[in-house]
Amino acid sequence: MKYLVGATPDGTAVFAVTGENAVNLTALDPAIGPDLMALITTPGLADAVAGKIEGAPSVPLASVTPALPVAEPGTIICLGLNYTDHIKEGGYEIPDYPALFMRGKNSIMAAGAPLVRPECSDKLDYEAELMLIVGKGGRHISEANALDHVFGYTVFNDGSVRDYQRKTHQWTPGKNFDNTGAIGPFVVTPDEVPAGAAGLKIESRVGDEILQSSNTGNMIWSVAQTIATISEYTTLEPGDLIAMGTPPGVGHAKKPNPRWLKPGEVVDIEIEGIGICSSPIVDEKDFVASVAAE
Amino acid sequence: MKYLVGATPDGTAVFAVTGENAVNLTALDPAIGPDLMALITTPGLADAVAGKIEGAPSVPLASVTPALPVAEPGTIICLGLNYTDHIKEGGYEIPDYPALFMRGKNSIMAAGAPLVRPECSDKLDYEAELMLIVGKGGRHISEANALDHVFGYTVFNDGSVRDYQRKTHQWTPGKNFDNTGAIGPFVVTPDEVPAGAAGLKIESRVGDEILQSSNTGNMIWSVAQTIATISEYTTLEPGDLIAMGTPPGVGHAKKPNPRWLKPGEVVDIEIEGIGICSSPIVDEKDFVASVAAE
Repeated sequence: MKYLVGATPDGTAVFAVTGENAVNLTALDPAIGPDLMALITTPGLADAVAGKIEGAPSVPLASVTPALPVAEPGTIICLGLNYTDHIKEGGYEIPDYPALFMRGKNSIMAAGAPLVRPECSDKLDYEAELMLIVGKGGRHISEANALDHVFGYTVFNDGSVRDYQRKTHQWTPGKNFDNTGAIGPFVVTPDEVPAGAAGLKIESRVGDEILQSSNTGNMIWSVAQTIATISEYTTLEPGDLIAMGTPPGVGHAKKPNPRWLKPGEVVDIEIEGIGICSSPIVDEKDFVASVAAE
Repeated sequence: MKYLVGATPDGTAVFAVTGENAVNLTALDPAIGPDLMALITTPGLADAVAGKIEGAPSVPLASVTPALPVAEPGTIICLGLNYTDHIKEGGYEIPDYPALFMRGKNSIMAAGAPLVRPECSDKLDYEAELMLIVGKGGRHISEANALDHVFGYTVFNDGSVRDYQRKTHQWTPGKNFDNTGAIGPFVVTPDEVPAGAAGLKIESRVGDEILQSSNTGNMIWSVAQTIATISEYTTLEPGDLIAMGTPPGVGHAKKPNPRWLKPGEVVDIEIEGIGICSSPIVDEKDFVASVAAE
């Protein structure tokens, strides 16, 4: 199944994507609610509504404005260094344990929404990433069982403000500027992709300019290994988000000059079989003005 | 005002501490609810209930089992290095920007609850810290206005699993083991302490053994500077928690041998004028067994 959470005149709803159209599942079964959480946590709900899709009314996919797949994720954990060539371009050693950091909920937004360049820095960078949404939670999940804990996969742009990321050895500030992490718009269930979403082309682009181009098969830590590693120290909860790190080609490492994102550009992150996450770059002062005008 | 959130036969409630007794504020005004969030977010509510305390029935303070002051904090941000001598004992350089990391909600628990030593490590360490609870939220809060955004102060034990903290340069795993960060039990409003809760004695002990002893006046970044720094990159929300870093004397830096916490010990963190946060150390296997038996 390919899901899309998006706005309707009656509020946010979950859609099933059927080619170029989308079926409003929340309209078919109100128990599904405004985001994926009910589907993640209610046994049998996904199968029950799947049986009602055929013949149901649909709308053009392009008419749906994406919203966050999980409106209030409990925890957002990110791998920092998970592709060998990206580690080298950042000047880091290849570690024997993943570099893990966290993002807060104010740092994320839906695909299509502005990706905000802050007033205090022009060093705004993109990072194409696979993101998984935890289905069944747990602690001490074995690598062998880990993929049973995945609800689905989506696309993430781990937008980073590089000078603030490296103010100290802890990356938190540069990874947590408001409205810099774009998620979605589509969530595919594991049966739609290879095991662990490995072997998928992953790319970032601005228009025709290809900025990153790699394959999720190049990840050092697989999805299953990552779930096992994280759940050694914390209980994963349904709806938690895990971002799997980015391949080489990020802007700060471009030669001879860094390639920072500029207002007016639209950055696209695409993962084969999942979809494209597009984000228009907007300066903070213009974003604040647009929100105030709403 | 000194608040205590704790269990009652009717569920969790907010108490006002009056010497050795506590008045159930939630019983006086059900709008207060099960934790501090209503008091934080509802203008006038604190003043209205304060007028009903005198003459109201009270219970002995010791009869109340503490619960988390904010049951579901949105974001927990921690300063890593904020006392000069602690920076030196850890082998770090004194930075010109605070080292910031985040904790997830499964890593925290109330004062009095078990602080769990994980199966995978015996390198469990204490960290005495001042913690502030955000009242009014905001972005780009100036240092001059920052203290207006503090709802209150409490005590935090930033329990750390040192080998996992230093698996890589990012401290997340060692700072996020389930049930390692103790909060509370008391929350004092800013009028009860000096501006920014500076100048208060802060200590950690196991029994008569004094492990850390310093003063919050030794912090490099004040509460006001910290709020201004963090709100440069993210919108602070009511109920967010900020931990202000720990003074020297942590266990991993003790000479000639590290001083790790052991099951059966009780670690006390005390801040002058706020209170004592006590946590019994329990091995993970015993903690899991006790939870399963409930």
